[in-house]
Amino acid sequence: MAQGEFNLIRRYFAQPALNFKKASVLLGPGDDAAILSIPAGKQLVVSMDTLNESVHFPADADPFLLAQRCLLVNLSDLAAMAAEPLAFTLSISLPEPDENWLEAFSQGLAVVANAYQCPLIGGDTTRGPMSVCIQVHGLVPAGKALLRSGAKSGDAIYVTGELGDAAAALWWLMSDTRLNQRALSRPSEQVLNQAFYQPDARINAGVALRDCASAMLDISDGLASDLRHILRASSTDTNSLGAVLDSRLLPLSDIFRTMVPEQEQIKLALSGGDDYELCVCVPASRETDARAAMAVLGIRFTRVGTVVDCVGIDQAGIQLVDAEGAIKALDWQGYTHFVQGG
Amino acid sequence: MAQGEFNLIRRYFAQPALNFKKASVLLGPGDDAAILSIPAGKQLVVSMDTLNESVHFPADADPFLLAQRCLLVNLSDLAAMAAEPLAFTLSISLPEPDENWLEAFSQGLAVVANAYQCPLIGGDTTRGPMSVCIQVHGLVPAGKALLRSGAKSGDAIYVTGELGDAAAALWWLMSDTRLNQRALSRPSEQVLNQAFYQPDARINAGVALRDCASAMLDISDGLASDLRHILRASSTDTNSLGAVLDSRLLPLSDIFRTMVPEQEQIKLALSGGDDYELCVCVPASRETDARAAMAVLGIRFTRVGTVVDCVGIDQAGIQLVDAEGAIKALDWQGYTHFVQGG
Repeated sequence: MAQGEFNLIRRYFAQPALNFKKASVLLGPGDDAAILSIPAGKQLVVSMDTLNESVHFPADADPFLLAQRCLLVNLSDLAAMAAEPLAFTLSISLPEPDENWLEAFSQGLAVVANAYQCPLIGGDTTRGPMSVCIQVHGLVPAGKALLRSGAKSGDAIYVTGELGDAAAALWWLMSDTRLNQRALSRPSEQVLNQAFYQPDARINAGVALRDCASAMLDISDGLASDLRHILRASSTDTNSLGAVLDSRLLPLSDIFRTMVPEQEQIKLALSGGDDYELCVCVPASRETDARAAMAVLGIRFTRVGTVVDCVGIDQAGIQLVDAEGAIKALDWQGYTHFVQGG
Repeated sequence: MAQGEFNLIRRYFAQPALNFKKASVLLGPGDDAAILSIPAGKQLVVSMDTLNESVHFPADADPFLLAQRCLLVNLSDLAAMAAEPLAFTLSISLPEPDENWLEAFSQGLAVVANAYQCPLIGGDTTRGPMSVCIQVHGLVPAGKALLRSGAKSGDAIYVTGELGDAAAALWWLMSDTRLNQRALSRPSEQVLNQAFYQPDARINAGVALRDCASAMLDISDGLASDLRHILRASSTDTNSLGAVLDSRLLPLSDIFRTMVPEQEQIKLALSGGDDYELCVCVPASRETDARAAMAVLGIRFTRVGTVVDCVGIDQAGIQLVDAEGAIKALDWQGYTHFVQGG
C-alpha cells in the first residue's frame, strides 16, 4: 500500500468534530507533536489502552460502536483517578483503508469525544493488523487523584451502576450456550450492545467522589479480580488487607437476571470483564456524603462489602457471603474479555 | 492464552531500570493511570508512534535493537519540537509471551530510557500481532516549541548529521540488489545497524536551536517529502513557499557513498526514510548562532538549500540544483520504510 493512502486515512481524523478547540490544547494534530498547557494547580493524568481485533473485539464489530468503546474504556481510567478528560491521542493500524469503515469509526469517536469534551490531538495511522491504541490525558487538582493504595480496614466497598451486563452482553454477542435466552427484543439488544460497546465512563462520579473515597479503580476484569488490586496496593508490611463481599448485595440488572442462569449470576457478576463501573472504598465517616453525591448524579451506588484485616484469609483474599448467609473463600478470578477462539 | 501470562509480561516493564524516578513523575505504572506534574513555565509536548512487525520492522528483528528504535523514533519527535524528554508510555502487543524476546526488548528500552532520562510510566500489554505503540512526553519552555509553520522566504535550510544512511541500511537489511556491495566488514555492519535501529534522537540539537530556528521537523520520510510539510505549513493565503535544494551540498557518509551506486545517491538521500535527522529553517540573521551551537555539540550541520517564494513552481514545490548546477523540479517523493512484500 502506498503511503498516499494512509494520508487519506489521516483526513478522517483531522476534522473539527474530533480536533475541536479546548483551552489547554495549544497545538493539535499536524506537527511533530501536540502541545498541552497544564493549568496551575492541576496535575496531568495519563492512561493508554490498546484494543486488538479478535482479542478485544470481534472482527466484524460495528466500527461506529467500536470507536466509542475504544475511547470510553480509556476515559474510564481517568474516571478511576477522579480526573476530568483533557484530550486524547490515537494510533490506529489497519490492513488497508476502507472508507466506509473509517467514516463510521471517526463518527463514533466524535460522539464520545464531544460528549466528554475530549478532543483528538494527535497520533499515528499505520498499516498493520487492525488495532486501536488510545492514550487519554486528564486533569486533576494537585494531590487529589484517587489511587488504588488508600484503602483501610473497615472501609465500605461500593460499586457504581450494575455488574455483569457487559459480560452477559459478550456471551450474547458470542452466542454462548449458557444464556437462558438468546433471541432478544430490539430494546434488550440495544441495552446489551450499549453495555459492551458504550459503557459509561464514570467521570462525574469519579470527580464527585474525590473527597469521599480512600481508594478507587474502574472494573475492567471483574470486581473480584480488580478489588484485589486495591487490597494489594493498600496493604502494608504490617497490615495485610482482605475483603468480605456479600453476594446478596451485588447490583444486577433485570436483563442480567433474565438472561443469565441463576447458578451463574454471582460468578459472572464478580468475574465477568468489561463493566467499567467504579469500585470505590469509602471510610465510614464519608459514606453519607458519598451516597448523597451519587444520588445527586442519579447514579446507582451500592455497598457490596467491607475491607477487612487479613485474619484467617490470604493476603488480598476475598470472602463471599452466599445466598444463605454462609461465608466462603472466593477462589476464582475474573477476566472473560473477548478472545476469538480463545 | 491466560491473562496470567500477560501479567508476567508486565514484569519486564515494571523494573527500576525503566521506571526510574524523575521529578515530574508523581505516579508511575501500576494504577489506573500515571500522574505527571508539569513545572510552572513549561508546556507539555506529546507524540505517539506505532511500529508494526513486517511493516516498520522485519519479523526477525533483534528485540534489543528494535526496542531502541521504537523509543528513539518517538524521542526524535520531541527533538523536532525543541522539547526535552519527560517520560514515555508503551503499549505492546505480542502473539504470545517469549521470555527471551521480552528480556532483550526491555533491556534495549532501558538503554535508551536511561540515555535520554525518559522513564516508562505506564501503558498496556495485550495479546495480538506484534506491535509497539509508544507515546513520548516532553517539556518545553512556554511558547518555545519549534513548529513546522514558522519558515519564511529566504530562510536557510539545514540538516543535522547525514542523509540516507538508514535507507541504505534498509536496503542492506533487505538484501536489495541495487547496492554496490552487500558483504560488509563488521564495523560497517555496525554502522548500518545503528543507522536503522539506533538513530540519534537529536534532543540536544533541538534545544540548542530553540532561539535560532524558524521551523523544524525530524526527517522520517525523506527530506524531500518532509520539507514539503514545512513549506505547506508555513505558506499563507498570500504567500506560497517553495524551496531550492542543492544536491551538491547534501551531507552523505563515506559508507553511503561506497555502498549506494552514484546514480541512486541523490534520490535515496532525499527520499529514503528513517533518517531522524532534523530539518531546520534558519533566518539569515541567526545562521551564525545556529552553526556555532551545533559546532559546540559536535553535530554536523549542513546548509542544503533555501526557502523561496513560489514563483514559477507549485506550492510547496522543490527545485533541485543538480551536479552540473542545472535547476530542475523535484517530482519524486519519499518513503521507503520497511514493508515486507510491499
